[in-house]
Amino acid sequence: MMNTQEILIQAKRESNKAPYSTEEKNTALRAMAKALIDHTDDILSKNKIDIENAKNKISEVMLDRLYLDASRIKDMAKGILDVSKLPDPTGRILSTHTLENGLIVNKISVPMGVIAIIYESRPNVTSDAAALTIKAGSVCILRSGKEAWNSANAIVKALQEGLENVGMSKNRIHLIEDTTRQSSYDLMKANGYVDLLIPRGGKGLIQSVIQNATVPCIETGTGICHIYVDKDANLDKAVKIIENAKTQRPSVCNAEEVCLVHKDIAQDFLPKLKEVLVEQRKAQDKIPVELRLDPIAHQIIDGTLATDEDFDTEFLDYILAIKVVDSIEEAIEHIQEHSTHHSDAIISENEQAQTKFSSTIDSAAVYINASTRFTDGGVFGLGCEMGISTQKLHARGPMGLEELCTYKYIIKGNGQIRE
Amino acid sequence: MMNTQEILIQAKRESNKAPYSTEEKNTALRAMAKALIDHTDDILSKNKIDIENAKNKISEVMLDRLYLDASRIKDMAKGILDVSKLPDPTGRILSTHTLENGLIVNKISVPMGVIAIIYESRPNVTSDAAALTIKAGSVCILRSGKEAWNSANAIVKALQEGLENVGMSKNRIHLIEDTTRQSSYDLMKANGYVDLLIPRGGKGLIQSVIQNATVPCIETGTGICHIYVDKDANLDKAVKIIENAKTQRPSVCNAEEVCLVHKDIAQDFLPKLKEVLVEQRKAQDKIPVELRLDPIAHQIIDGTLATDEDFDTEFLDYILAIKVVDSIEEAIEHIQEHSTHHSDAIISENEQAQTKFSSTIDSAAVYINASTRFTDGGVFGLGCEMGISTQKLHARGPMGLEELCTYKYIIKGNGQIRE
Repeated sequence: MMNTQEILIQAKRESNKAPYSTEEKNTALRAMAKALIDHTDDILSKNKIDIENAKNKISEVMLDRLYLDASRIKDMAKGILDVSKLPDPTGRILSTHTLENGLIVNKISVPMGVIAIIYESRPNVTSDAAALTIKAGSVCILRSGKEAWNSANAIVKALQEGLENVGMSKNRIHLIEDTTRQSSYDLMKANGYVDLLIPRGGKGLIQSVIQNATVPCIETGTGICHIYVDKDANLDKAVKIIENAKTQRPSVCNAEEVCLVHKDIAQDFLPKLKEVLVEQRKAQDKIPVELRLDPIAHQIIDGTLATDEDFDTEFLDYILAIKVVDSIEEAIEHIQEHSTHHSDAIISENEQAQTKFSSTIDSAAVYINASTRFTDGGVFGLGCEMGISTQKLHARGPMGLEELCTYKYIIKGNGQIRE
Repeated sequence: MMNTQEILIQAKRESNKAPYSTEEKNTALRAMAKALIDHTDDILSKNKIDIENAKNKISEVMLDRLYLDASRIKDMAKGILDVSKLPDPTGRILSTHTLENGLIVNKISVPMGVIAIIYESRPNVTSDAAALTIKAGSVCILRSGKEAWNSANAIVKALQEGLENVGMSKNRIHLIEDTTRQSSYDLMKANGYVDLLIPRGGKGLIQSVIQNATVPCIETGTGICHIYVDKDANLDKAVKIIENAKTQRPSVCNAEEVCLVHKDIAQDFLPKLKEVLVEQRKAQDKIPVELRLDPIAHQIIDGTLATDEDFDTEFLDYILAIKVVDSIEEAIEHIQEHSTHHSDAIISENEQAQTKFSSTIDSAAVYINASTRFTDGGVFGLGCEMGISTQKLHARGPMGLEELCTYKYIIKGNGQIRE
């Protein structure tokens, strides 16, 4: 195995080579998928070691994320094949023009170079991230959480074998051996070697990257998503959308955490909402949603009295903070200040209100009369997803293959000089 | 005046408001240009203070950059008017598609939010940066070098008066009062307030931003630009292009610093190059170029023997490092390793060599048979330039108005929920 510094040097050297063609990359992806299936037994035996080591140390949910079986490996291989079928994001002419002096200036999409990904204990991220990076023409450096390291190592060995089987260098996919904090730190400071660093995981990991990275990185993930129910909302629609956004899968970043309700319809709306989120769910033996209410909402329906903190918390659970607002302006102001700018929605039949909201709210995805749960690379037509950016530089919202690329200018002349 | 923290709060609050229309922004720019002219006397008297304070402390070149007169202020005003005539970079529909369930997903270019610019002693950067930011729909925070602060303050006051004359908030343009390092540091760490930080200045400033910023930033500037003269080069073209790239304006980032010459033509080419860069310039009473030669070039022509460092130095002067290479592969490898990835060129009549070079070299601008001096926002058709990015995230090469914007998704439905 190579140490982190050696990996950085090898990765940069590899990315400095001439780019592979679309067909070469797709052939490699197919070979990676095949090698993954071929090595199922080995991967499962290494995964067993990770599971044994992790038992009693991590939660049941985390253990399930770590667990692999033959069917999950098949899914991972299918994921790689799916990526092989996506269009090549590189080599597109983004713009072209010819100057008066005859110079032709072409702006062309090209690979990013070296992409490092720091993630936690999901072994499937290993194959997903590697496949997307290969398709985007880049070299990837993977830094897996230590709980999943044996699984990740077995997966990477299989993927590298797949690359070599079709004559591509195995140096296009690297796994960092050191699973201490030091190796994450080394990647964050690897200026000149890492062109893009993407953290995939919880808030702690993401904040550590934002605070420490000197290489270009993308902030992903945290979603405090709002739904504002306007005075001109269709209340039935609003209830159904909020039920979906809050309860369909509360643990994900595009789930709703805060509901703002216009005062004119609060008296009507809040009991309807409580009926669906609390009473009906109880009757159906489902987990009821805990409502955390501001003082005005609390006068209308029963629930916990909310603290200020509840309006700045990503619950990722069956909890919803509710606040009554005097106007759409107050709703917008609240969202601009408290949102993580991931996904926010307005429910209103009033076109003026819709436009005011969608043009002013500064979030990656702004919804009109729909659930926030749709923020996803697949849904948005990107074909795949490397994460969801909540920053504004380079990529915003779901990151697909195009967002893993950069561009360069190629200028062709016949002796032109600048006067 | 407000302190830095107050400015950050005001700027974010301003950027959270509904965006201005194209016409409102253009009206504001025209008013800014007029106010600048109207306040010529005040700006010149404040500039005189800066000049007096700086005398004997900074070089003649720097003093000239700091110096303003009525004609330079007119140029600044004209620059603002030029920006008012450029197309609005926001509000463009970048992609649109309708899902099977009827959801319409639009990707739209929108303002970045708050853009902070840290720069040095050129007062014209103050009006340039403010104009571009206003046109891009963002709020700007300017942090001028202390030598130019009185000039910058007078300029900003005029620009703010222009904004207020047409009913736009003066909070769209801020100048930081504190000119100690602390205020730069405050901007670099202003997560949640600054959406994009751009350093404009020397290597020290840029490196300080890269090392310390936790807000998204763009690395600009440094150019160690290479020209490779291939064995199939037209040697007369090559001499003319290198003469232009090296001597037309050696102090700028797109000037050539290193020349690589294929061994097969070195014997022919190097004496021709020396004739033009050294002998002819001496005869014309121009500063001759100092040639720093690797051992093989040194056997062919006279000059200084180069050190390793000479091949990693941005001279910004009449100095050229020259190395003889065995092959195009060696040239590419050298450039990949030593370039700052700003602008690099190949001189060759061989199409295969041109393609190999342009597809492999990982630089913002790759030239075929033309001078590197063309890397410029105006030349590339961007209409203007906020700096030249040498990183790969978000913007690469010259940054125009589009590169100062981000995008968001606006998703319109009629009650869609996720299954």
